[in-house]
Amino acid sequence: MSQVNVGLCGLGTVGTGVVKLLQNHAEEIKHKVGSEINIKKILVHDIDKKRDVSIDREWLTNDPEELVNNPEVDIIIEVMGGIEDTNVLLEKAISNKKHIVTANKDLMAVHGQKLLRLAKENQCDILYDASVAGGIPIIRSLTEGLASDRIQKIMGIVNGTTNYILTKMTDDELAFEPVLKEAQELGFAEADPTSDVDGLDAARKMTLLANLAFKMEIGLDDVEVSGIRTISQEDITFATSLGYTIKLIGIASIHNGKAEVTVEPTLLPKDHPLALVKNEFNAVYVYGEAVGETMFYGPGAGSMPTATAVVSDLMDVVKNTRLGITGNEYVTPQYEKQLKENDEKYMQYFIRMEVDDTAGTFQKITNVFTDENVSFAKILQLPSDKEKMAEIVMVTHKISKQQLLNSRENLKDLDVVNRIISYYRVDGED
Amino acid sequence: MSQVNVGLCGLGTVGTGVVKLLQNHAEEIKHKVGSEINIKKILVHDIDKKRDVSIDREWLTNDPEELVNNPEVDIIIEVMGGIEDTNVLLEKAISNKKHIVTANKDLMAVHGQKLLRLAKENQCDILYDASVAGGIPIIRSLTEGLASDRIQKIMGIVNGTTNYILTKMTDDELAFEPVLKEAQELGFAEADPTSDVDGLDAARKMTLLANLAFKMEIGLDDVEVSGIRTISQEDITFATSLGYTIKLIGIASIHNGKAEVTVEPTLLPKDHPLALVKNEFNAVYVYGEAVGETMFYGPGAGSMPTATAVVSDLMDVVKNTRLGITGNEYVTPQYEKQLKENDEKYMQYFIRMEVDDTAGTFQKITNVFTDENVSFAKILQLPSDKEKMAEIVMVTHKISKQQLLNSRENLKDLDVVNRIISYYRVDGED
Repeated sequence: MSQVNVGLCGLGTVGTGVVKLLQNHAEEIKHKVGSEINIKKILVHDIDKKRDVSIDREWLTNDPEELVNNPEVDIIIEVMGGIEDTNVLLEKAISNKKHIVTANKDLMAVHGQKLLRLAKENQCDILYDASVAGGIPIIRSLTEGLASDRIQKIMGIVNGTTNYILTKMTDDELAFEPVLKEAQELGFAEADPTSDVDGLDAARKMTLLANLAFKMEIGLDDVEVSGIRTISQEDITFATSLGYTIKLIGIASIHNGKAEVTVEPTLLPKDHPLALVKNEFNAVYVYGEAVGETMFYGPGAGSMPTATAVVSDLMDVVKNTRLGITGNEYVTPQYEKQLKENDEKYMQYFIRMEVDDTAGTFQKITNVFTDENVSFAKILQLPSDKEKMAEIVMVTHKISKQQLLNSRENLKDLDVVNRIISYYRVDGED
Repeated sequence: MSQVNVGLCGLGTVGTGVVKLLQNHAEEIKHKVGSEINIKKILVHDIDKKRDVSIDREWLTNDPEELVNNPEVDIIIEVMGGIEDTNVLLEKAISNKKHIVTANKDLMAVHGQKLLRLAKENQCDILYDASVAGGIPIIRSLTEGLASDRIQKIMGIVNGTTNYILTKMTDDELAFEPVLKEAQELGFAEADPTSDVDGLDAARKMTLLANLAFKMEIGLDDVEVSGIRTISQEDITFATSLGYTIKLIGIASIHNGKAEVTVEPTLLPKDHPLALVKNEFNAVYVYGEAVGETMFYGPGAGSMPTATAVVSDLMDVVKNTRLGITGNEYVTPQYEKQLKENDEKYMQYFIRMEVDDTAGTFQKITNVFTDENVSFAKILQLPSDKEKMAEIVMVTHKISKQQLLNSRENLKDLDVVNRIISYYRVDGED
């Protein structure tokens, strides 16, 4: 029986899970891949730290060279995070003909295409299914299971922290701040929650999915991102009363060869499959021309789910090595990048505003929209808490983003409109 | 650019979809696999029949030998159905070193292990992801994405016809027969609906999934099957009022190395991910030791979804051929088949009975259960339509099947129990 040696970079939550899985499932894994997988070296900051897993002290090192320059190491598992330094490390490892398995979406979103090309040149594998939606084999499904189809749209709840927060805000009618605090205490949110709550984490994952689905090089800068900090309990109440659930949704779509990738709070019909995904769970909804709608649901993070994805990728690398077919992940992008302009981005919008509660107000507002050819699916007017004010919520039919922006500008100029309180994308009704 | 020639057996709904997909997506497919895929021959009954797809008349034949003995054909796509004759045909094709892609779960459930072994001997691929839950890449997910995990339980809605019927019965409060008739008119049910409504179709698919998940050879005879004919509107009403949805669920579970595979109407908590899967959609819920809960959702049948799975498998075969690694699907079962006995099958049950509406009835009934050590999660008693009768519905805590069977026998002997109207498995609460 052949042997494969692994160098593990990082022994945090995921790294510990990987070690446990390799130890506890050693027999099954050997049976499936026909090789024994050994841990050779583990890169850690602090060699003396107490660990929640049984390891050989000999494995531990804080010198990365002992992994990436070690002729005995065949495969590097990178679960330590970080972007630039990690990139340098992995480039060196690949140049030394080591295969890579990584859970690092930050790195892959920024340097992925370059690393994949370098890996191909060196006939090395670089697999990263763990980097998007941990326990959900979504990258594999896009590249293999749905390979014969043309993907037209991907909608994803790909950040567990924000989904947890929005679920609590909706179900328990709580405000953002106290829920964030609770999430931090429970370990569902980081001490610095910026990259989660402002949508950057989701944007990175959507970049990776869009690249695979549309076969064009879409970068992080091409993604329009807004987070969930500004969502108020009133927004949620209005959305609910109109039959919607607010989720932070990453949307990648393509039409006539032009792509659009966004991450933003989005209202979904309350029986949409994604609206039903609660708490820290992730789900990716894929619309393919032939297959129609499919959805993949599961844990988006966590030690063991992410470790499962890492080890499944590792097993693939081992199989590919035995078969002599490594280095086949990178597929030259088939299409030149083309992005939709604002007048090509069609969607529905929810617009909520505070207006004068006087005769003629509604007419002035509808005139603005009529001038821009915008019509409505739903309208709701309620008295405001403020004297002589009312709140109006309107859900448009599908309009272009340009129509929305024009209408917004013109609404701001109206004396009867005190302020536009919020506006959100509405999706999932087509 | 290399060329690959395909022989297509069957040009019905799925076969037509395959031809359309190969024609419409020819460029993308070529880009992904690096080979051109040509249709060489199509096996049909009636050469002169009008077809809903553009084909070359030269392709059509009604002689299977022109496919399985044709040295120009590299890969056979089998989408014609049938078991014994089809098996003979595919055995011949494999002996002639042709790779197989099939959507035929009936065939695979009966002869799959034998065909997979034969294919391995001949270094041929035989891929069948289209055979279970058409548009959902579930076989791929089990064998690859979740490969590093230990699968403990699979729960599947793997038959679209019965899910459509149960959805209509639940949402529109209709009886089984008229809904079946409507489903037949809409094309969601066959003229002879037996294999769907009696659970056989689902059982075949669960056999394939159980084999893969538990790495033991579980046959169709090992599956306990019951269908949906006996589900009444009253059962649905009671289930709903207790917070459950009735679905036809295939369940494969393993505990201490012993497996159990069943297909039966099952009550799920109404917010369980599977309870929310409506109409003809399919979904497979997988519980893995490490990954926890994941779910795969999508169309279970239909021309284009199934064709997508077939062509994705076909693309894999082409890639494997180019890489010289065909014949690797069959993995020797790692474990001897061991099945749970009745006293090892633990689950909750819903029991509905008609009883005398007299003092002491309830006590006699609870005595029977107490003697068997059965306790209850929920109890509901309502007046019956019949005079001096009442209906009692009880949902047990987890008990063994043996405890259920013993209790049922003893209840039948009670003079106050007029009849046991129905009983169903309850699952998804753990």
